[in-house]
Amino acid sequence: MRLMIALDGMGGDGAPEVVVKGANMARSRYPGIHFHIYGNEALLKPLLARFPKLARCTSIHHTDVVVSSEDKPSQALRKARDSSMGLAIDAVRDNIAQGVVSAGNTGALMALAKIALRTMTGISRPAIATMLPTSRSECVMLDLGANIQCDARNLVEFAIMGEVFSRTVLGRTKPTIGLLNVGEEELKGHEYVRQAASLLRELALPIEFRGFVEGDAVWAGAVDVVVTDGFTGNIALKTAEGIAKMYSGFMRTAFESTILSRLGYLLSRGAIGKVRSRVDPRRYNGAMLLGLNGIVIKSHGGTDAFGFANAIGVAVDMIRGGFSNRIAEEFQRIGDFAAPLQKAAVSG
Amino acid sequence: MRLMIALDGMGGDGAPEVVVKGANMARSRYPGIHFHIYGNEALLKPLLARFPKLARCTSIHHTDVVVSSEDKPSQALRKARDSSMGLAIDAVRDNIAQGVVSAGNTGALMALAKIALRTMTGISRPAIATMLPTSRSECVMLDLGANIQCDARNLVEFAIMGEVFSRTVLGRTKPTIGLLNVGEEELKGHEYVRQAASLLRELALPIEFRGFVEGDAVWAGAVDVVVTDGFTGNIALKTAEGIAKMYSGFMRTAFESTILSRLGYLLSRGAIGKVRSRVDPRRYNGAMLLGLNGIVIKSHGGTDAFGFANAIGVAVDMIRGGFSNRIAEEFQRIGDFAAPLQKAAVSG
Repeated sequence: MRLMIALDGMGGDGAPEVVVKGANMARSRYPGIHFHIYGNEALLKPLLARFPKLARCTSIHHTDVVVSSEDKPSQALRKARDSSMGLAIDAVRDNIAQGVVSAGNTGALMALAKIALRTMTGISRPAIATMLPTSRSECVMLDLGANIQCDARNLVEFAIMGEVFSRTVLGRTKPTIGLLNVGEEELKGHEYVRQAASLLRELALPIEFRGFVEGDAVWAGAVDVVVTDGFTGNIALKTAEGIAKMYSGFMRTAFESTILSRLGYLLSRGAIGKVRSRVDPRRYNGAMLLGLNGIVIKSHGGTDAFGFANAIGVAVDMIRGGFSNRIAEEFQRIGDFAAPLQKAAVSG
Repeated sequence: MRLMIALDGMGGDGAPEVVVKGANMARSRYPGIHFHIYGNEALLKPLLARFPKLARCTSIHHTDVVVSSEDKPSQALRKARDSSMGLAIDAVRDNIAQGVVSAGNTGALMALAKIALRTMTGISRPAIATMLPTSRSECVMLDLGANIQCDARNLVEFAIMGEVFSRTVLGRTKPTIGLLNVGEEELKGHEYVRQAASLLRELALPIEFRGFVEGDAVWAGAVDVVVTDGFTGNIALKTAEGIAKMYSGFMRTAFESTILSRLGYLLSRGAIGKVRSRVDPRRYNGAMLLGLNGIVIKSHGGTDAFGFANAIGVAVDMIRGGFSNRIAEEFQRIGDFAAPLQKAAVSG
């Protein structure tokens, strides 16, 4: 299968080195892949020269303009046309690439992608989604920060997008959906969360809606898709990162504390390594901007080549799963569900 | 120092046994403590007979009525006057006890406590707070679910209450305060969160306000007091619990996976035990209902005697720290700060 990926060569803390090294790792994983890298040629060329196999399947497109992580979306938009991020997104719009990966500023990426690719018909707002480890396997959570304020309609759309992603990209047969809330009872939580639950029940969508899930149940693997507003989702995600870091730190200190525990660590190192790899944030790197006419992946700004390669892997999975077409079909299939939804959004 | 604690003998999954056993553990920790236990005498008496020392410092007050965990606050209110929870709260109102501890329904406890004890002058809404472990030490987070919808004024009041708690009960000299948000920049997050930040700066309160903190920074110990609305706080807290459980599960599986790792576990068991105890949720059991005229502690419904004893310990710490008087003084001391705050709340 033909795989053409556009890369923002200058986005992220370690760019362009991390981008090139990550692309090289992805190249060895996905035979036949081709990259368009956008950025400073003077920096990119010598880097690429270190990886001859990558150089053979990569085209460099020069630009001096970079959207920095400090730029506000409005500033980014002014630079957009000529920036490495903007050009990489345009490659998707112009069918030069099937997907774009950037480790740059999230707000700028969303703003530029919305303008260049436009939001899909039937979707009012795109969302940021990511895969997360759970005790049972993995789940998808969205939104993670694109939409601070959400209404019931947004949440219903997130549910549908998350469901299609889980089915087409992760291969779940009947993914289950839950709305993140402070309790499982019907009367709990924000008005718009309760309204979204009613809508998801009334609309009788062809999805497995399981009602509300609480913050702890997410990590027990209660559902395959966790739907929430961007404020709550961002704080849940970062809380998870923070707790994971705190625990690793405590464990490290504990293992280093006595000679016995050091020896114990040496003996169980292999097993502990497996846990570490299972929850490695780099493994889950690559957040999806869902709801756009095109595949856009946001890599963590501080990731390394391994993490960046995984973000490219998410783009590859979405291309192979035919995500863009499937979600468009899905919205057609459940066609007239949009009518009551719009009515409800007005009255809500 | 005289310590008189009222206990809801019938609240929680393990009541009344957990309550009595927990009281007995607290008794040996706090010499001179006296308990008033409210609940079914036929059940409580034989339990108490097993702990003669506890029996000597405990009075049983009989009632048949129990607020169940399934009761809605409105149902709980109807039962209130005669329930074990209601009577235990009344003991604080009537100066029979200095604080009350219940492992019953949170919503009911808050509703009953508001009616019996009333909200403190200067506070518009009470909040639920808890102590949490961080990489550096401990922090206080509020609100955790009492107020799903908050405005800027509520958050400012939470900040003040959290600050006084941290200073008087935890003994922090200059506790730092942060508002939980999706970014550190001024333009990020909900309108009411940004408005609360402006207020905290403009009002020039005698507190160390550090601006916004993100979900991961909380666990790194960025601030001593984390302020948020009840929806976000509840989800952050439960996410933390869920991640902790997931990690423990992964580690357990890892240690059990090979003979080497089992041996490794045996050798490092002591060190790992220290980590486990440091993050033991029972150690942090006992959420404070702040902003009421009286000390009210909510124990986790599913905790054991050790956890319940710790919840009693929180009440003891607050009584000894003179929290109720200190917070009243604090609101007097910063007296006229309330005026611009009320104006702001109206315009917000």
